[in-house]
Amino acid sequence: MPTDIDLKNEPPLVDAFQSPDRLLMGAGPSRVHEDVLKAMSQTTIGHLDPAMVAMMDELKDMLRYVFQTKNAMTFPVSGPGSLGMEACVNNVVERGDKVIVAINGVFGTRMAEVTRRAGAEVIVTEDEWGTAVDPNKVEEALKANPGVKAVGFVHAETSTGAMSDAAALCRLATDHDALSIVDTVTSLGGVPVNIDVWGADAVYSGTQKCLSCPPGLSPVTFSDKAVQVTLDRETPVQSWLLDLSLVASYWQGDAKSGARTYHHTAPVNALMGLHEALRRIVAEGLESVWARHKAASQIIVDGLEEMGFSILVDEAIRLPELLTVNLPDGIDDGAVRGKLLNDYGIEISAGLGPFAGKLWRIGVMGEGARPENAERVLSAIKESIA
Amino acid sequence: MPTDIDLKNEPPLVDAFQSPDRLLMGAGPSRVHEDVLKAMSQTTIGHLDPAMVAMMDELKDMLRYVFQTKNAMTFPVSGPGSLGMEACVNNVVERGDKVIVAINGVFGTRMAEVTRRAGAEVIVTEDEWGTAVDPNKVEEALKANPGVKAVGFVHAETSTGAMSDAAALCRLATDHDALSIVDTVTSLGGVPVNIDVWGADAVYSGTQKCLSCPPGLSPVTFSDKAVQVTLDRETPVQSWLLDLSLVASYWQGDAKSGARTYHHTAPVNALMGLHEALRRIVAEGLESVWARHKAASQIIVDGLEEMGFSILVDEAIRLPELLTVNLPDGIDDGAVRGKLLNDYGIEISAGLGPFAGKLWRIGVMGEGARPENAERVLSAIKESIA
Repeated sequence: MPTDIDLKNEPPLVDAFQSPDRLLMGAGPSRVHEDVLKAMSQTTIGHLDPAMVAMMDELKDMLRYVFQTKNAMTFPVSGPGSLGMEACVNNVVERGDKVIVAINGVFGTRMAEVTRRAGAEVIVTEDEWGTAVDPNKVEEALKANPGVKAVGFVHAETSTGAMSDAAALCRLATDHDALSIVDTVTSLGGVPVNIDVWGADAVYSGTQKCLSCPPGLSPVTFSDKAVQVTLDRETPVQSWLLDLSLVASYWQGDAKSGARTYHHTAPVNALMGLHEALRRIVAEGLESVWARHKAASQIIVDGLEEMGFSILVDEAIRLPELLTVNLPDGIDDGAVRGKLLNDYGIEISAGLGPFAGKLWRIGVMGEGARPENAERVLSAIKESIA
Repeated sequence: MPTDIDLKNEPPLVDAFQSPDRLLMGAGPSRVHEDVLKAMSQTTIGHLDPAMVAMMDELKDMLRYVFQTKNAMTFPVSGPGSLGMEACVNNVVERGDKVIVAINGVFGTRMAEVTRRAGAEVIVTEDEWGTAVDPNKVEEALKANPGVKAVGFVHAETSTGAMSDAAALCRLATDHDALSIVDTVTSLGGVPVNIDVWGADAVYSGTQKCLSCPPGLSPVTFSDKAVQVTLDRETPVQSWLLDLSLVASYWQGDAKSGARTYHHTAPVNALMGLHEALRRIVAEGLESVWARHKAASQIIVDGLEEMGFSILVDEAIRLPELLTVNLPDGIDDGAVRGKLLNDYGIEISAGLGPFAGKLWRIGVMGEGARPENAERVLSAIKESIA
């Protein structure tokens, strides 16, 4: 796909980009509050500015609250959720390690692939898409494979809308002397995530789902045990950027003085945005935020069922923040989503993988999780399929 | 460093972050124009929104102009410059490959480390910090090590302010059937970078230097030859996020239809900012931008020399955008930099590695590279050392 721009004489003059007004009710990114956008557009400052360092400390404390953890090693990785996944896997796993990854959707599949690329011998358990990870299968895999280093799974599968029992899965890992690697990209801020209660070891999330922040950062938290495992490695972490033992000099500072030193140039403005997004959650309180997600989601479920739609996932394990809606015959997937976007300014998401064309994914995340947005989605769908 | 926040009862309530007003004249990030901050704070939209995809195409064309290349595979990696470094190294290099890395500062040292972590056998050439990479040493290393896969070097060493002869080094690589891996983090937009004229193969940069954009993205460009090498690999790229063959589905789209599919959730707002920053460079014209850097830098050099300071790097290979200023005896490095920051709101940078405490790094980058900013720095330094 070569471009034919004339390098010297005709620089590509384009108009300023005007972002269209959208109500984001898809699988992410989610709607972002104006205050977060404003915080993010403040004057750029240095990544080691004393004001920046003080802000980073507040940010880490707020992340600990949202993760419900006391883990010292809690910070946002300078990249999207998939980089957070690599940060967790690559720090904990060494070449040749045996790792179990539970797959029940796209993101478990991705974690298995990332873990293979880290050189691990990956043992997968598989559950039907739309169902939870079966702890019995994981337990059997642990029993059948002594010496497993870690168990990875996805708490909230963004591709299916199913929630797995993180507490049970982390406990199984611990009981078998394995670490747990947990994807909380779509769960953090939307449903209870209790890192310390679960005893989870290496956990990553994203900013662009229920934290209601633009995409680009991946909050992570590591238990002291997981940190020790990375410090005791025989081989270096394959990614220099993600190596906890190096990045700690910036995010944690010197063990004695706390002084920070340069590792990489952190995305200063994105961090200002995350600081504000977390502040909003702290001010509202996690319990209220979870309840708001549930209430707005229920409005959509009720309205859709009234229109004759059904939801893929059983109520007991259904994520309020990510609804997978079965498409009845006669509904043109692409046409209706296009109409919603172009005529109503509302984004909902298509199905992924085997679900492409078979279902919609409606996100009820962060700022999107409000009754008025739920009603807007419902009435737009009603009119679009009429 | 355990935190003692009480998870449930005392969420960490903090004030909104107020970014202090700073004139960034350090080694990066650089000053960002208000229009870029404004563009970045527009409504977040979906990463596959048709408006987003159209904007991405413009962004790629502008990046090609700034890189002076027709390379199809030109896009911003979703992470800082160090992730762009890993993207270039990890795609091109397989375990066991022989790679030459030329070291004349912190970032060549980092590239060697990243290349080792990619499993390569790394052969280094070394030049004194503050001097350019010696092409003769690289040529000798190429002759002494038949079958070298790639030659990596830093065009503009941010730790020393020295510029190396990228054209000569890329030609040497090509003449020995090796690929070139080139760091243009501090050069892109500040001095001529001519990817196609050089025949460079895998090139990364950063947004937070002479492109005058907040940190967090790493523009990269790969020659068709480098792309083919990554497609012909025997083993997968160790990073899933950075694997060109996968990320192309999002940034390039289907080879026939051009349709984009989901790979990872790109940092939508950061990309809006980069779009605007590139637009400003295109409108001004690269030659004018380069000349502006040179002129503002010369004001600082003249003023500093008048005050009795000397510049580390010989004029012939001195980067206008990154001046390394030798500190005479009697000047308290930290105290003066602290005074500049706290009393004048001006950030300049400390020396790195062996240069810590021995020199300052003054950045004259992007929006910072204007006569009025040069004068502000000079008068603040004059008053601070009086």
